[in-house]
Amino acid sequence: MNFGSDNASGVHPRIMAALAAANDGIAASYGRDALTAQAQDRVREVFDAPEAAVFLLGTGTGANALALAQLCPPWGRIFCHETAHIETSESGAPAWMAGGAQLALVGGDWGRMTPEALAARIADYPQEDEHDGLNAVLSVTNATEWGTVHGPTAVSALARVAREAGLAVHMDGARLGNALAATGAAPADMTWRAGVDALSLGGTKSGCMALEAVVFFDPERAHSFSFRRMRAGHLWSKHRFLAAQMLAWLDGDLWLDLARHANAAASELASVLGGAGRPPLGPVEANEVFVRLPRTEIARLRAAGLRAADWPNRGDDAGNGTIRLVTSWATTDEEIAALRAVL
Amino acid sequence: MNFGSDNASGVHPRIMAALAAANDGIAASYGRDALTAQAQDRVREVFDAPEAAVFLLGTGTGANALALAQLCPPWGRIFCHETAHIETSESGAPAWMAGGAQLALVGGDWGRMTPEALAARIADYPQEDEHDGLNAVLSVTNATEWGTVHGPTAVSALARVAREAGLAVHMDGARLGNALAATGAAPADMTWRAGVDALSLGGTKSGCMALEAVVFFDPERAHSFSFRRMRAGHLWSKHRFLAAQMLAWLDGDLWLDLARHANAAASELASVLGGAGRPPLGPVEANEVFVRLPRTEIARLRAAGLRAADWPNRGDDAGNGTIRLVTSWATTDEEIAALRAVL
Amino acid sequence: MNFGSDNASGVHPRIMAALAAANDGIAASYGRDALTAQAQDRVREVFDAPEAAVFLLGTGTGANALALAQLCPPWGRIFCHETAHIETSESGAPAWMAGGAQLALVGGDWGRMTPEALAARIADYPQEDEHDGLNAVLSVTNATEWGTVHGPTAVSALARVAREAGLAVHMDGARLGNALAATGAAPADMTWRAGVDALSLGGTKSGCMALEAVVFFDPERAHSFSFRRMRAGHLWSKHRFLAAQMLAWLDGDLWLDLARHANAAASELASVLGGAGRPPLGPVEANEVFVRLPRTEIARLRAAGLRAADWPNRGDDAGNGTIRLVTSWATTDEEIAALRAVL
Amino acid sequence: MNFGSDNASGVHPRIMAALAAANDGIAASYGRDALTAQAQDRVREVFDAPEAAVFLLGTGTGANALALAQLCPPWGRIFCHETAHIETSESGAPAWMAGGAQLALVGGDWGRMTPEALAARIADYPQEDEHDGLNAVLSVTNATEWGTVHGPTAVSALARVAREAGLAVHMDGARLGNALAATGAAPADMTWRAGVDALSLGGTKSGCMALEAVVFFDPERAHSFSFRRMRAGHLWSKHRFLAAQMLAWLDGDLWLDLARHANAAASELASVLGGAGRPPLGPVEANEVFVRLPRTEIARLRAAGLRAADWPNRGDDAGNGTIRLVTSWATTDEEIAALRAVL
Repeated sequence: MNFGSDNASGVHPRIMAALAAANDGIAASYGRDALTAQAQDRVREVFDAPEAAVFLLGTGTGANALALAQLCPPWGRIFCHETAHIETSESGAPAWMAGGAQLALVGGDWGRMTPEALAARIADYPQEDEHDGLNAVLSVTNATEWGTVHGPTAVSALARVAREAGLAVHMDGARLGNALAATGAAPADMTWRAGVDALSLGGTKSGCMALEAVVFFDPERAHSFSFRRMRAGHLWSKHRFLAAQMLAWLDGDLWLDLARHANAAASELASVLGGAGRPPLGPVEANEVFVRLPRTEIARLRAAGLRAADWPNRGDDAGNGTIRLVTSWATTDEEIAALRAVL
Repeated sequence: MNFGSDNASGVHPRIMAALAAANDGIAASYGRDALTAQAQDRVREVFDAPEAAVFLLGTGTGANALALAQLCPPWGRIFCHETAHIETSESGAPAWMAGGAQLALVGGDWGRMTPEALAARIADYPQEDEHDGLNAVLSVTNATEWGTVHGPTAVSALARVAREAGLAVHMDGARLGNALAATGAAPADMTWRAGVDALSLGGTKSGCMALEAVVFFDPERAHSFSFRRMRAGHLWSKHRFLAAQMLAWLDGDLWLDLARHANAAASELASVLGGAGRPPLGPVEANEVFVRLPRTEIARLRAAGLRAADWPNRGDDAGNGTIRLVTSWATTDEEIAALRAVL
Repeated sequence: MNFGSDNASGVHPRIMAALAAANDGIAASYGRDALTAQAQDRVREVFDAPEAAVFLLGTGTGANALALAQLCPPWGRIFCHETAHIETSESGAPAWMAGGAQLALVGGDWGRMTPEALAARIADYPQEDEHDGLNAVLSVTNATEWGTVHGPTAVSALARVAREAGLAVHMDGARLGNALAATGAAPADMTWRAGVDALSLGGTKSGCMALEAVVFFDPERAHSFSFRRMRAGHLWSKHRFLAAQMLAWLDGDLWLDLARHANAAASELASVLGGAGRPPLGPVEANEVFVRLPRTEIARLRAAGLRAADWPNRGDDAGNGTIRLVTSWATTDEEIAALRAVL
Repeated sequence: MNFGSDNASGVHPRIMAALAAANDGIAASYGRDALTAQAQDRVREVFDAPEAAVFLLGTGTGANALALAQLCPPWGRIFCHETAHIETSESGAPAWMAGGAQLALVGGDWGRMTPEALAARIADYPQEDEHDGLNAVLSVTNATEWGTVHGPTAVSALARVAREAGLAVHMDGARLGNALAATGAAPADMTWRAGVDALSLGGTKSGCMALEAVVFFDPERAHSFSFRRMRAGHLWSKHRFLAAQMLAWLDGDLWLDLARHANAAASELASVLGGAGRPPLGPVEANEVFVRLPRTEIARLRAAGLRAADWPNRGDDAGNGTIRLVTSWATTDEEIAALRAVL
């Protein structure tokens, strides 16, 4: 019953096999190999973006921080949801890599902000002069940290507000596959056609070993990005092993299949919890489920083998706590059945 | 009728005279002159803090940013009011100088946060591991950006919450004189005895030309600060001219007299506005007055010679706007009378 | 005949097998898994340093930059050889991650500096006051960028000069295995017993996929390093796959065997070149060989299949150029024989 | 006999008077006042550069660091003389403000580099890929730290090498007045007509209290510089007091008169020393004189009242040391006569 994190699951066998297959002979280093070129092309195809600049690297924080640093000047401000990963869980990486930029937080239920809330927050910073800093970027997380999803229409509406205020738009797609699987949207519709300028595309949580991409749909946005990635130490020398993961992950839409599996497991978890009189706190749209339970019950479940993270400071009281259950490509029916049995 | 900014006023004659007097002969550069040593001693006396480390410099943003950078590691978080100057008006300086730190905003009426609100905000960032960043500093602005004041008891209560959470405490005292004049508190009671570790002490808005100090009440907190100030370009070579300002400003409690004058003028402004059926928006405790007026009225007053800054995005509507009126050591009865006449 | 880079070789089969073996079931993320603890213990054993703090990550630039940032304050100065990788090939990463630190270059034949040269360079920066910056770190590359090696005595002599000047000592061990294989020195003798405080230990060039470690021999030196690594995006979520590489690489001294192979191949290359009347430019002690050849000859060899990097600006003239040949764990006798045949 | 530093002298009476005169009534803050506009215009006139963007601030390190940060990307490299102030005396400020850039040092006699030496140093960093960093800026100090001067022809020759390599050109003109006085060159010929893109123009050492300017001859180079200055804390609120200094300093060519006075005093010092059998070490062209003396003689002179800085690590031996004597606008004949008498 491990629902602690999608990072706790391993590597999908097809991806592991691709790593082994890529290990044949020598290959040019630092991304000048043939496999990397193929992987970049493949990303462009999948996103229907033949001009896009595609960079591979190994971690999601690296991808987010470097993408945002590219979009945001040091005196800029990045608008994001108050539960965004870049705010809660990256120890200030994006702001630091952007040379000292600032996050401006926007509220909203279940990890989503409304266009109105975004517009109001932007208006908090009238752009009169150099004291004000520069309103520079909107970062949208999709799927969100609360396991909800923005569809293309929602992304477009947010991007429109951003665009009108002169902001560039970034999408933290650490779980983009889950968002696409949940909505059935085409990758292009969810990103550049909806106004996204730069995407952090995450493979690690979804079956890869260590693979993320930063995609700039307008290649001019990527100017000097190779320097930026290099000096952050995020340019792999044996780059073919990033490329091999990407190719296998995208091949035959494996990435979407894995995301569908994880989403379905979360949905099933929600049913199980609801059936036990413990309905999830919010909508379950991707691969995360949040539930408030008596603390004694949480302890009992853990004693029975459940792994799930505490999600503190969500209005809980002495008797009740909130936990987060995450499913992954590797979640099994047995694990869910075990939870049902224990509940 | 210039109530645009306390920075629009000039230099008090006694301070200007002190600058001229300091211009006699040669003096060691970079703060190794006798006048600087005297000024540092004088600050220590005024704050009843014989061990304090005192650094002089020329701008308030410099003072705030360097003080906070000293207290906050690059991966740290600085808690401050959502209207704090370091958030709204320094273009990200503190976060940048601290190597990419982050601000965490706390709400509260009229520029003041409650201990409960601070505690709740700190709890938003459970300190489980390296993803969370480090809760590192509380910055209290006194007087606040809304012209209100924290007394020693209020500062102590906030500092206690901070201390329990492991935070250092900074006070942005760009208008500390106004806060002291408003409360009658002793400088020591308002600062280190209330739990403040580092103070930005502002002279520029209050009668000086360009003078601020950073005071570390525990000198160990100041370790390597001289490097930090130097490489930010905030070490004046002809340092005696900072020292001369400080000595004249503190001499005979001139600083408090000037602050009292400004506070009294603001209080009088509030009466004038109230008498005209236009009461200020919030408490008028220091040298700032905020008032919501019909936009036509604002236009009429400006046409009649009023200078006052727009204070946008405060819940105004199409018909009404908010303006800020600031008084200073140089505000005259004539200016206030002129406003009364126009109203 | 690929002697372009040791990064062009693949992953040793035993390491690839270990990755596959580690992919069984779930494992706690972010380094809290059992395999990571084992790998850290194993590094401590190999270095006879039971108290050392060991951090795994994926790239050499990440390892160097983070280690140096940990040792060097933002106003500090890092002394290194003028051909050090941190100077020539990391796009300013160490200085940036250290918050704006500076490199001070020391000359010396074939990638090595003498204690006298180091001492003289340190003396260039008398530490009088805050203008001077702080002499903070010595970084020694071993094996060097010219394929030479420092033995424990040489490292000790440099570290002694550093220590007397108050500097911490870092070793860039991207090719430490080659240096150990060349000298037969024990890992502890080459590092902490010789005065090294922090080591970047490189596996990637020597048979791993993406694996480096930062080792602080005194764990107090590692204070807050977990924040530093995290916010640089260098904390792998599926951390077991770093650990698996490390365990396999160290197991049965595979790392030293692979380094011996590479060193022997370089030695053989040197013989081949010397036999052809083209002796290497400098001592060949590790896995790199530099040779100056007529440009027509270089072109002829490349046409015949040689891959070797140009090494420009080394006093070459119109007729002659310098190339670098690098051997690796995967270099074959056939490749060397082919070169002999072509020469 | 104070020849310790030109920063030890005070403020010229005409400049002090201008400060007092500017203190009349209120004035818009942050550089939106009339006096600032006049000062900017006056700088443009003096440099025959009607389009130039002119920014005033208070310190030379601030001016240099902000100007270089504007010209150099974070992954860039700034070429400068090995004795440049930005290398020896600013504690890493320029590199830090430029987001982690690096200095590359060029040698040369008496503070001057030759075009050939610059070209060779640039060639040390072939621009093959992102590992190499970006060769970005040349910074020329004029007058140099050794009291020598570059004429327009010398500046042009260096700028041409820089331009061909794609570098922008900065001049550290902390003592530009001395260089102009020494050569008789027009300000425009010494700067933009010779290829300089950005100038740090220093008033503080030459009779002002705290005044420097950053001048971008092509205003497009100044894009967003106002943000950069603000968040470094270098935007004075009572900005008229910077402007007043500049206007008085430039008025009637006071700045050049003061520089001529200082240069003449240095020339006289050189004669005095030569006459005493102690000729200066290098050419005396501006307002600095370096002399090597027996240490007993240095001690004797100091006992007699001489102030002059030690200039260590210049090839001195046990018996001899080097000192630097600096003259200023305030140096008197009496001081020089006193030195002659003592020698």
